[in-house]
Amino acid sequence: MPEGLEVLVGGKVDPSFGKVITFGLGGKLVELLEDVAIRVLPVTEDDIRAMIREIKGYRLIRGYRGEPPKDEEALVQVIAKMASQFAEDPRIQEFDLNPIVVYEKGISVVDARIIVNDTPAPGTARLNIEVPPEIFYPNSIAVIGASASPHKVGYSILRNLLSFPGNLYPVNPVRTELFGRKTYPSVKDIPGPVDWAVIAVPARLVPEVMKECGEKGVRLAIIVTAGFREIGGDGVALEEKIVEIARRHGIRITGPNCLGIMMPHQGINATFDPVSPRAGDVAFVSQSGAIITTVVDWSLPEEFGFSSVISVGNQADLGFEHYLRFAEQDPATRSVALYIEEIQDGRGFMEIVRQVADRKPVVAVKSGSSRKGRVAASSHTGSLAGSYDVYIAAFRQAGVIPARTLRDAFNLAELLASEGYPQGNRAIAITSAGGFAVLASDYAEAHGVDMVDLPEDVFRELNAFLPPYWNHANPMDIIGDADATRFAALFDVLIRHQDFWDIAFVIAVPTTLADPAHIANEIVRFSRNTDKMVVGCMLGGDSIRSGLRILRSCRIPNFSELEDAFKAVGNILRVRTAPSGEQHRLPHDDRCPGGGR
Amino acid sequence: MPEGLEVLVGGKVDPSFGKVITFGLGGKLVELLEDVAIRVLPVTEDDIRAMIREIKGYRLIRGYRGEPPKDEEALVQVIAKMASQFAEDPRIQEFDLNPIVVYEKGISVVDARIIVNDTPAPGTARLNIEVPPEIFYPNSIAVIGASASPHKVGYSILRNLLSFPGNLYPVNPVRTELFGRKTYPSVKDIPGPVDWAVIAVPARLVPEVMKECGEKGVRLAIIVTAGFREIGGDGVALEEKIVEIARRHGIRITGPNCLGIMMPHQGINATFDPVSPRAGDVAFVSQSGAIITTVVDWSLPEEFGFSSVISVGNQADLGFEHYLRFAEQDPATRSVALYIEEIQDGRGFMEIVRQVADRKPVVAVKSGSSRKGRVAASSHTGSLAGSYDVYIAAFRQAGVIPARTLRDAFNLAELLASEGYPQGNRAIAITSAGGFAVLASDYAEAHGVDMVDLPEDVFRELNAFLPPYWNHANPMDIIGDADATRFAALFDVLIRHQDFWDIAFVIAVPTTLADPAHIANEIVRFSRNTDKMVVGCMLGGDSIRSGLRILRSCRIPNFSELEDAFKAVGNILRVRTAPSGEQHRLPHDDRCPGGGR
Repeated sequence: MPEGLEVLVGGKVDPSFGKVITFGLGGKLVELLEDVAIRVLPVTEDDIRAMIREIKGYRLIRGYRGEPPKDEEALVQVIAKMASQFAEDPRIQEFDLNPIVVYEKGISVVDARIIVNDTPAPGTARLNIEVPPEIFYPNSIAVIGASASPHKVGYSILRNLLSFPGNLYPVNPVRTELFGRKTYPSVKDIPGPVDWAVIAVPARLVPEVMKECGEKGVRLAIIVTAGFREIGGDGVALEEKIVEIARRHGIRITGPNCLGIMMPHQGINATFDPVSPRAGDVAFVSQSGAIITTVVDWSLPEEFGFSSVISVGNQADLGFEHYLRFAEQDPATRSVALYIEEIQDGRGFMEIVRQVADRKPVVAVKSGSSRKGRVAASSHTGSLAGSYDVYIAAFRQAGVIPARTLRDAFNLAELLASEGYPQGNRAIAITSAGGFAVLASDYAEAHGVDMVDLPEDVFRELNAFLPPYWNHANPMDIIGDADATRFAALFDVLIRHQDFWDIAFVIAVPTTLADPAHIANEIVRFSRNTDKMVVGCMLGGDSIRSGLRILRSCRIPNFSELEDAFKAVGNILRVRTAPSGEQHRLPHDDRCPGGGR
Repeated sequence: MPEGLEVLVGGKVDPSFGKVITFGLGGKLVELLEDVAIRVLPVTEDDIRAMIREIKGYRLIRGYRGEPPKDEEALVQVIAKMASQFAEDPRIQEFDLNPIVVYEKGISVVDARIIVNDTPAPGTARLNIEVPPEIFYPNSIAVIGASASPHKVGYSILRNLLSFPGNLYPVNPVRTELFGRKTYPSVKDIPGPVDWAVIAVPARLVPEVMKECGEKGVRLAIIVTAGFREIGGDGVALEEKIVEIARRHGIRITGPNCLGIMMPHQGINATFDPVSPRAGDVAFVSQSGAIITTVVDWSLPEEFGFSSVISVGNQADLGFEHYLRFAEQDPATRSVALYIEEIQDGRGFMEIVRQVADRKPVVAVKSGSSRKGRVAASSHTGSLAGSYDVYIAAFRQAGVIPARTLRDAFNLAELLASEGYPQGNRAIAITSAGGFAVLASDYAEAHGVDMVDLPEDVFRELNAFLPPYWNHANPMDIIGDADATRFAALFDVLIRHQDFWDIAFVIAVPTTLADPAHIANEIVRFSRNTDKMVVGCMLGGDSIRSGLRILRSCRIPNFSELEDAFKAVGNILRVRTAPSGEQHRLPHDDRCPGGGR
């Protein structure tokens, strides 16, 4: 066998996403360093090309240090052939082409192992009937288990719903009135139609309540009660029973074992969370109620708003896919943030989220990356791909932007809600502080954001009004004595020359010479007069607050820690850019008091 | 040549730190992935052992997948011998042992290249006379160039110094009074002694002013004026001139071209920054004035305090080393944060910072990591070590904890000021929210923090009072209905059993059942009654504010984003732990109103 570059390709069945393939260079070191690329099947040849280029060691294939490039196309063909065979043949459970030797011309599969099983595991068949969007815009809500006792969940839910402008019906077997609202012994006693029933009665009573809801014609039951599938045993049976009742009566279920649903634009807080969020652009769908409570509490002083906040609970009926569909068509939603612990039907999820993400950006935090939670590594290639890594690969494949922390997720969701996907990778940065110009370069490189060179004609225009000792480079350091007018003049040049850049980071620091409100107004004007991505980085504390308020009211995102801005943009660029020429962001409405067009 | 594991060792001269060695596995892939370890010489054999173990590929040396281990000790001996020869022989400029083949028994250096130069570059001789600590505690300050015009720097400096309790003397050739203070035409006209002179006159006038200061017996001149070395040409000569005058008269210089010095505990703000920071525990020494202004502005709403804030400017005389010495002995300082753009005398810096860091933790942000700022890579081993990587390696070697962002740096400085170095790597986490328990596991693993198993007797004690469905694992999920009493009882068990853990993360989220002030008081009591590290992670916004205030007043650090807590601790653990048995943190004073011992 002549010498060449060793690579390997493996395939396995992931419990959430089904058949996946992995690609990496050969050798134990690669295994240690986990430099592998993963794709959920099926894949196109272009997917395979991207996969090969994704690994850090790709330069060895392309030709490193003057070596001639290897036969990448032959590799693509072999992987494509094997991948489609694996995808189509239900008997193949696992395969391993290891090593494949890649030459300047041609490749050679030295060893291949294919594990075949004649009784393939049944696919996860899941209820996935379309949900009519109207179901999420109720005219009337009943709270079943409404209570007069402040320590009860049914008290908090009713109190939170007092601001609902539609019809609100407390249901309680003994009370005739709660919070001044007429109260009914059963949902069936309510005179008008009931769209939503929020159910907070003990678990054993839920089946009976669900039957009554069915007779009443309730469309969505939000079951906050716990004690179902999550406790195992009897709980599983109880959950199956309520799903069966729901199906019989055509009721859809959120939960059980959930916090509920908040829709600030509709005045709905159908949860027992002690606080209600502001109305905003981001739909947040979470598999943890405590994380919702924490995020909503955090969002208030941050003045971060939501279009909806949904706690999925056990997902006995409605799941991530349905809420994603709702967010896709909901006019109040401009971007979506997900907190995911586990997805059962990974393929169904990918199919839907891909369509949603084409219209509205989707960001996801996936928990459970630690080794403790993964299956013990086996000795074959596929084992390099722990389940968490498959999730992240699947997210990217479906156009979803992964985030490691909740802060990162909401930073991303806000940026994308405002600015849409960037049209490319070419970035510029503007600052009046030399130290931050250096840090901006550092963070750009660390996160894969490309600081472009400034074109000659832009230099000429800038030199006409910038002080002679400006740094003549990108990031543009326009010197500590810059006032809002100098920023404005620079923005004007960049608006006129928006062909050479895709993303602009505007870094403003506290100074006595530039009023932060003026700078913020100029940033707004800049953002509104280009269809490129403008990222606010006003750094500091109290003295920039007036500027932050203006950015916030015009929905221009701001990053108070510079690296977060580059990290967010880098995360997006790694997944997608807007197809050129396409409308890359939703139009802004006219809520902005400052510098509209 | 029989088959074995290929490694390589290189040596080169770094412009800041002098002779350094690099170690890595052989092969182009390692080069691409930059999996190398770096040390500044001289090194001990233990340093070399640590260096070998630091690379990700080390498992191939230790014996991967059942292979017998390689002869690590022989490798240590060869590296040690080469390193000491390189360190001691001034003629050796560079070397490359590549490859070295390591066997089960013995090693073989296959190829060696040593570049010798008979005229070694002269070492950077730097003025490094000890500074008497008293110099930083002035009784009298003159502001030379004090002004009545609000747009002048000399106006801002004088205004900022009005709160200085010692003698303040404005110096202005035409005014007789400024801000109600008697004003002198020259520093020589001031009746009493003058310890500090803050100089804000035009650059060309500075030499004359310095002479007058010398005659007056000024001890420290803080020259904020710009227009010296940083502009090149005449500026360089001017700077040399003022240094010569200073030396002749025994004046020390801060700056020139700096923002000045703030010492909140002494009521000193000798800068033109529009705001003054709170008094606190952290000394911040920065090579960028704009970064100081931004950080101080940020610190006010965050209620973050400083013992001193020093802008080093051009470091014509005093530099990082002198300010570090001051911070070391200053009783108000509990930890030090540095923002570094460039260090001239890397070795001098390391020698001093190592001693300081043994007494008080030092954290550093180094800017300039981007490739654009690095010398073009050459084809030898040493080129893998870009200058930024040498800085980071040197920091760790000297016990300094590197941070990538300013936020990370201040998080670290605050944590270390309060809790000192952790005694080891064994961590526990406590939360009432399952979602955050999962994320805590994820972040712990990602940042090299070891979540220990709970001992049998601890389980027994916990089971006695925790609800039966607690998760029986670490992170300990003590269930959403936990109140402060349940947290307190758990802390009591952990105080009694503090032999099995070194670091505790306490994760509290907003809930109606637990008053955050009570939880915070219990965290304080926990921290005060153990000598282990306790890390507050109270997450949320407005509703946990009462708790945050208590933690802050007792100087217990809190992380509002969970990953930041694990990242900070992981950063510390990568550099150092407290030697066991040693007093690992400075004693807390009694300012804490809450739960002292």
